[in-house]
Amino acid sequence: MVSERSVYDGIKEKGTDGTFKEIDWELLKNEKINDEWRIFARSTSDDKGPIVMLLQALDILAGQIQQPPFNVKVVLDCEEEKGSPGLKASLAQYKKELMADYLIVMDGPMHSSNIPTLTFGCRGGTGFGLTTYGAITQQHSGHFGNYSPDPTFILSKIIATMKDDDGRVLIDGFYDGIKFDAEAEKIMAAVPDNMKEINDRLQIAEEEKVGKNYQESMQYPSLNIRGLKAAVVGKGGGSIIPEEALAEFGIRLVPETEGTRMTNLVKAHIEKQGYKVFDHVPTKAERLANKKLVFMNGGGPGSPAFRTEVNSPIGNWLRKSVTENFKQDPIVIRIMGGSVPVVPFIQTLGVPAVIVPLVNMDNNQHSPNENLRLGNLRMGIKTCLSILTTPI
Amino acid sequence: MVSERSVYDGIKEKGTDGTFKEIDWELLKNEKINDEWRIFARSTSDDKGPIVMLLQALDILAGQIQQPPFNVKVVLDCEEEKGSPGLKASLAQYKKELMADYLIVMDGPMHSSNIPTLTFGCRGGTGFGLTTYGAITQQHSGHFGNYSPDPTFILSKIIATMKDDDGRVLIDGFYDGIKFDAEAEKIMAAVPDNMKEINDRLQIAEEEKVGKNYQESMQYPSLNIRGLKAAVVGKGGGSIIPEEALAEFGIRLVPETEGTRMTNLVKAHIEKQGYKVFDHVPTKAERLANKKLVFMNGGGPGSPAFRTEVNSPIGNWLRKSVTENFKQDPIVIRIMGGSVPVVPFIQTLGVPAVIVPLVNMDNNQHSPNENLRLGNLRMGIKTCLSILTTPI
Repeated sequence: MVSERSVYDGIKEKGTDGTFKEIDWELLKNEKINDEWRIFARSTSDDKGPIVMLLQALDILAGQIQQPPFNVKVVLDCEEEKGSPGLKASLAQYKKELMADYLIVMDGPMHSSNIPTLTFGCRGGTGFGLTTYGAITQQHSGHFGNYSPDPTFILSKIIATMKDDDGRVLIDGFYDGIKFDAEAEKIMAAVPDNMKEINDRLQIAEEEKVGKNYQESMQYPSLNIRGLKAAVVGKGGGSIIPEEALAEFGIRLVPETEGTRMTNLVKAHIEKQGYKVFDHVPTKAERLANKKLVFMNGGGPGSPAFRTEVNSPIGNWLRKSVTENFKQDPIVIRIMGGSVPVVPFIQTLGVPAVIVPLVNMDNNQHSPNENLRLGNLRMGIKTCLSILTTPI
Repeated sequence: MVSERSVYDGIKEKGTDGTFKEIDWELLKNEKINDEWRIFARSTSDDKGPIVMLLQALDILAGQIQQPPFNVKVVLDCEEEKGSPGLKASLAQYKKELMADYLIVMDGPMHSSNIPTLTFGCRGGTGFGLTTYGAITQQHSGHFGNYSPDPTFILSKIIATMKDDDGRVLIDGFYDGIKFDAEAEKIMAAVPDNMKEINDRLQIAEEEKVGKNYQESMQYPSLNIRGLKAAVVGKGGGSIIPEEALAEFGIRLVPETEGTRMTNLVKAHIEKQGYKVFDHVPTKAERLANKKLVFMNGGGPGSPAFRTEVNSPIGNWLRKSVTENFKQDPIVIRIMGGSVPVVPFIQTLGVPAVIVPLVNMDNNQHSPNENLRLGNLRMGIKTCLSILTTPI
């Protein structure tokens, strides 16, 4: 849970203009710690902050000579950002030691309102690449423009068929199996997302229209392109027709949409347009025999999504803990958009899981200027204390 | 006319399998020079070869105490590969000294058959970039997939509308003004292009279908994408939605299609799809006010095409020179696909021009392994001699 670019950069104050300024400690000697100040350092929020919050809560309990009314087992995964290569095997090996009634995951950001948040599921993900071909090598666009096929146009035509102008996926079966009952609709509508504010921050005129609101949009699988490349743009580019064009896609999964099935839907969609889809770079003979051909790599199960019922023993216990201690109902997220690597626990141990996110949404995790808001540090400690003192 | 990557790499022989092998000089001591051997070195074909051919022809004439039946003026442009920044001003300054009846350009490759070739025109070119936008910065594809617009899909949708599956441009007016009379049709059909062989070399099942044959396809303007980019593919890529996607287009021009008009046709085509086309990176206010927006840069006149009438004094003189000396009619190219920077001469001096290409088509100019076929060196000297001894 370590980000890659920021390093410790002090404690700063968020100004009314949204920028961060150094705190003048001399002037502020007598001021109380301000919730809006932030600690800037690599991994403050993702994910050393929550560890420190839990340790602090345990210290406070110990100082009061208290014990939680249940046993606590702690798993710290130091390899999450590289895909937790050892996690699954360790879970199987130490299954007996790790077995528990409930699993609480303290990763990811709270709702942007910083109201106590309980997250009952997260999307998973898979991905694949699509490569289209022109001539076997780059061709001079003068001598071969109007003659040699242009792989960028071929790729664009395939991509263009996959989503409508509002971001809805047009691939047959992509949304199959997803439906919401009245309770789910109510849970999603209750989250106080300010879409106007989000759009202003993203600087977009309109959001995509997959769900009725932000929360509902996260209950569907998504299809995005994380990178696109053909030859060279800018300096170093030539007057050529590229030999190939590549798009790398990411699919975010929900519990209803298993990764391999989704990959196959994409493949079938491309085949329906008359393309031969190869699972290898096509040979000369294959190139000469197929006008419409594409190489698709990757895909498969990827990392699955999960969703725990809100109305369940773990859900009811955590909601009670928050409501009693904060005198406020928590924000309940049915499925969050991002992925938290909790699925191996659920699959291996069979333990119902809820994510209790503690850090601020604008923590810049995985990016420059990662930070932890002091208000979240304070509130996170209180949340840990609340959970550790609420009987199951 | 200097290529960039290859350096002198000796003389080699093309084997029957198409690869080049070192020549065993010991074994070949008594063999005659073989036309199929090639000199491998940077700029052998583009464009030191033709200079050497002309000098050799002049030396031969001098050795025979002969003079050409006309004055010869020679212009060597050492800056062609960087856009000839000084050429136009020099032409204007030395217009009187350079004024001539005919202009012969010795650049570019012969027809692949290596039959003597006369090229009466070449395409010009212009180019532009299209950038589409998602959120102002990259977004996490988990938290924002199905919400924040994906610029790669937007760009693909725009590109997909521009050409049909056979490479024909669908932009209104793109081919306006281009027509061929019976003589032009005959000239194009007479060129012995082996499209099956070309396609086999390019490893494509089918060529685009802009013209009835390769030559006719070169008489039309073309639209290609020389580079495509959004975020990062492969190593270093992330699970994100890119903030923007960029395509850099090249348009090859013919005399009927002026660059600025063509750029405006593209712009109108995009606008017809409901996009606001900006000539600058859109501001936050512009982004918030326009759901469909794109930034278009570049375009404009670029470098114009030219075409000299085949049935003209210079054309008749050169055809006579080839036919008499080679006992064979030349291959006549109405417009070649690539661009040769001859237009400043034509515009400034008003001299009718014909390109007399001398080097082999497979010379790999601008690429690794540039080479000059010895048969072309020999025949190029003969072509220069023919021209230098044919009275106007």
